[in-house]
Amino acid sequence: MTSRGRARASDRRARGAVVASGKIDFTDAGCFELPYAPVAEALLPEGPWKVVEGGVCAAKGFKVAGYKAGLRAKGTRADCALIVADEDATCAGIFTTNIMCAAPVTYCKKQLAGKPTARALLINAAQANAATGDQGAADAQATAEELSKSLGVAEEDILLMSTGVIGKRIKLDKLMPAIPILSANVESSTAAANAAATAICTTDLVRKTVAIEVQIGGKTVCMGGMAKGSGMIHPNMATMLGVVTCDADVTPEVWRNITSRAGAASFNQISVDGDTSTNDSLVCFASGKAGNAKITSVDSAEGKLLEQALTAVCRGLAKAIAWDGEGATCLIECNVSGAADDEDARVIARSVVCSSLAKAAIFGHDPNWGRLACAAGYAAPVKNRFDQNDLKLSLGPHQLMDKGQPLDFDAVAASRYLKEVTGVHGTCVVDISVGNGSGRGQAWGCDLSYDYVKINAEYTT
Amino acid sequence: MTSRGRARASDRRARGAVVASGKIDFTDAGCFELPYAPVAEALLPEGPWKVVEGGVCAAKGFKVAGYKAGLRAKGTRADCALIVADEDATCAGIFTTNIMCAAPVTYCKKQLAGKPTARALLINAAQANAATGDQGAADAQATAEELSKSLGVAEEDILLMSTGVIGKRIKLDKLMPAIPILSANVESSTAAANAAATAICTTDLVRKTVAIEVQIGGKTVCMGGMAKGSGMIHPNMATMLGVVTCDADVTPEVWRNITSRAGAASFNQISVDGDTSTNDSLVCFASGKAGNAKITSVDSAEGKLLEQALTAVCRGLAKAIAWDGEGATCLIECNVSGAADDEDARVIARSVVCSSLAKAAIFGHDPNWGRLACAAGYAAPVKNRFDQNDLKLSLGPHQLMDKGQPLDFDAVAASRYLKEVTGVHGTCVVDISVGNGSGRGQAWGCDLSYDYVKINAEYTT
Repeated sequence: MTSRGRARASDRRARGAVVASGKIDFTDAGCFELPYAPVAEALLPEGPWKVVEGGVCAAKGFKVAGYKAGLRAKGTRADCALIVADEDATCAGIFTTNIMCAAPVTYCKKQLAGKPTARALLINAAQANAATGDQGAADAQATAEELSKSLGVAEEDILLMSTGVIGKRIKLDKLMPAIPILSANVESSTAAANAAATAICTTDLVRKTVAIEVQIGGKTVCMGGMAKGSGMIHPNMATMLGVVTCDADVTPEVWRNITSRAGAASFNQISVDGDTSTNDSLVCFASGKAGNAKITSVDSAEGKLLEQALTAVCRGLAKAIAWDGEGATCLIECNVSGAADDEDARVIARSVVCSSLAKAAIFGHDPNWGRLACAAGYAAPVKNRFDQNDLKLSLGPHQLMDKGQPLDFDAVAASRYLKEVTGVHGTCVVDISVGNGSGRGQAWGCDLSYDYVKINAEYTT
Repeated sequence: MTSRGRARASDRRARGAVVASGKIDFTDAGCFELPYAPVAEALLPEGPWKVVEGGVCAAKGFKVAGYKAGLRAKGTRADCALIVADEDATCAGIFTTNIMCAAPVTYCKKQLAGKPTARALLINAAQANAATGDQGAADAQATAEELSKSLGVAEEDILLMSTGVIGKRIKLDKLMPAIPILSANVESSTAAANAAATAICTTDLVRKTVAIEVQIGGKTVCMGGMAKGSGMIHPNMATMLGVVTCDADVTPEVWRNITSRAGAASFNQISVDGDTSTNDSLVCFASGKAGNAKITSVDSAEGKLLEQALTAVCRGLAKAIAWDGEGATCLIECNVSGAADDEDARVIARSVVCSSLAKAAIFGHDPNWGRLACAAGYAAPVKNRFDQNDLKLSLGPHQLMDKGQPLDFDAVAASRYLKEVTGVHGTCVVDISVGNGSGRGQAWGCDLSYDYVKINAEYTT
């Protein structure tokens, strides 16, 4: 690069990647570069769909932008994103149950309780707007009003998400002027989708985005999502944010049901360290532009397929978050079968991936069936307690337990399996069967390493 | 020591500290030495009682022994203990809720469901007799029958506890011959109580024992306890065992109520890593030898005082277990007030001491109010959600939050507080108020250090 080229790049960064025309350059490396690995894509469950380009712009009817408003304490990365639906889109959300929930969470819950559609979602990183009291609520309201004005849509059609430092007000002096710029720059492109997916990240090591297309009722339906998670900024929790856009035509009631179940089977089944953030949010839009006959029942073939597809996208994103857990050397996937029902199976699977002892053992390449079985056994009250003598347990291809007792397995080979999956930051699979029931469930987590402690202990005020 | 002296000491160790007469030498350092710090005593809550000598032998009516049967894979430490009541003692227990519970847990629950008294409790370390199937149940039964025979008491008066490696049968060839020796050697002495408290430890760094006397109804009532916890033997969990002996005269129903509540306010409020073992057990005996008028109501002044005293002993022991958590550099005590009721307060306190993020922050001397407040906010469903704007939070003498928002506190001084308490393996106090309710609760845990990961990851099969 010539010195003149460097100067131009530096100018662009200083101006938040807006070039002279007022147009954001979504290819600006300073703002929008984040190491990318197709993790969400690689971890997407298989099904009757195919992966496509475009992230949250893959579905018809949505435009997106990312921008650097200057909210972050350091670095050149973009820090805010906007998703706009061309027309009213059916919208459903799931939010943190944390009592200390952030102002934007309270705001979204109120909005979505009032009406089943939305037009725009503004996301900022760097300040979480949590533990900010009445002033935080007023700040959220102010950004929504500014966005309403600059987009020309009603304020009740606006949604908000924040992630970052808690206990700090959003830097409104930076965010407010950015809102009209974001509004003027939304577009439907892979570059814009990637820019948005990068802008919402905090300390994520990779950006997380995936899109698929699936044939529903003879029409091609697209859906794409982006997520951030595992980033830890003092003194914030590892907030998870997820956004999915879809162009299926579906009634609000069905979409709400499907979103709720897809979220329960994905984002609610991952754990990095068991802490539930003040800001966790998942919002799913459906524009209805795919031209399919409107889906009016969750039990119809079309409703079921839509739910499968949304669950797959959410799982791809959620698994990518667990994979990117702080200090992780592998993703842990626990598959539970034979439980009385799916909910029991999920509770057991979650207990296993949350066990510090099991996570530390996997990090240490120790095929420690005892810790895994114990975590299955102390799972939060399940409706139907299983019989300990029915428990079977495998680690990858190695069966370690049968009938509730350890087998005489090849410990060296089982340890080698863990060395291999952690060596490539792969997936460690734990299969547990607890009986003859039809209940199945999955959960995902990551191992517990020295780096987890380092990352979370070595920030000193 | 002369070479002859060394030879004698070595002979004694080889024979499990039994000298020629068949008498166990409870002062044998090879068997019964464990670094002792008066942790349970130092951490005992204050009240109208005074600390006395004697551990589980302090109360009238109990005899104790510890012995080295040869159950451990290595080391010279004793590995089994026996507590015998001179006559039928009122007895109550609390046991793990883990579905994968060990054979001795199933055995004790059956025994105590059948009758409200017991005569003897046999405890072994080194093998947990968990994940051992029907054979494990048969092994437990065999040891109980042997003990019944050698003590001359009915088998339905026998209780059992085990801790150690799970998935392995108890070494019956070692334990069975030890049972008559233990039976023949029980005595009421501080040395025997200490020997027993040492014998039940696994990787505990200190033995945990405390005894108090308290005036109830004009009579001196003694109670003493011992506990083990935080020891981790592959692939076992950090099993907690607790035993309390008391000489109060009390009805079985009152004793059961009091034990249940004291356990809920102590052993159930500690967490080292959130894992609930297959073997956790607390058993409390009351011999009735103190000569007090029989306590027949939990609401009488005497009943209340007895409950306070038992709660104090259990808390002293439980806090000592948390203090001795793997890799811990401090005990964390969380005091919650202002909740709707005590149970809500306890749930919130437990959530805080279980938070990996908060534990890592304390290890790193980071006065991270955000992680503490967040953990309070996501506590498992409380009956009455508090208002986030009512939250107050202090770390030691430093108030960090008020009205749900951070204060402009002295971060350097607050960090120094954490440096000081971790520097001396002291107690880090977190005070949280969530409103104006009368509910109060406490929980105890420890910080999360590199050593925790090291201890739990670096065992490789």
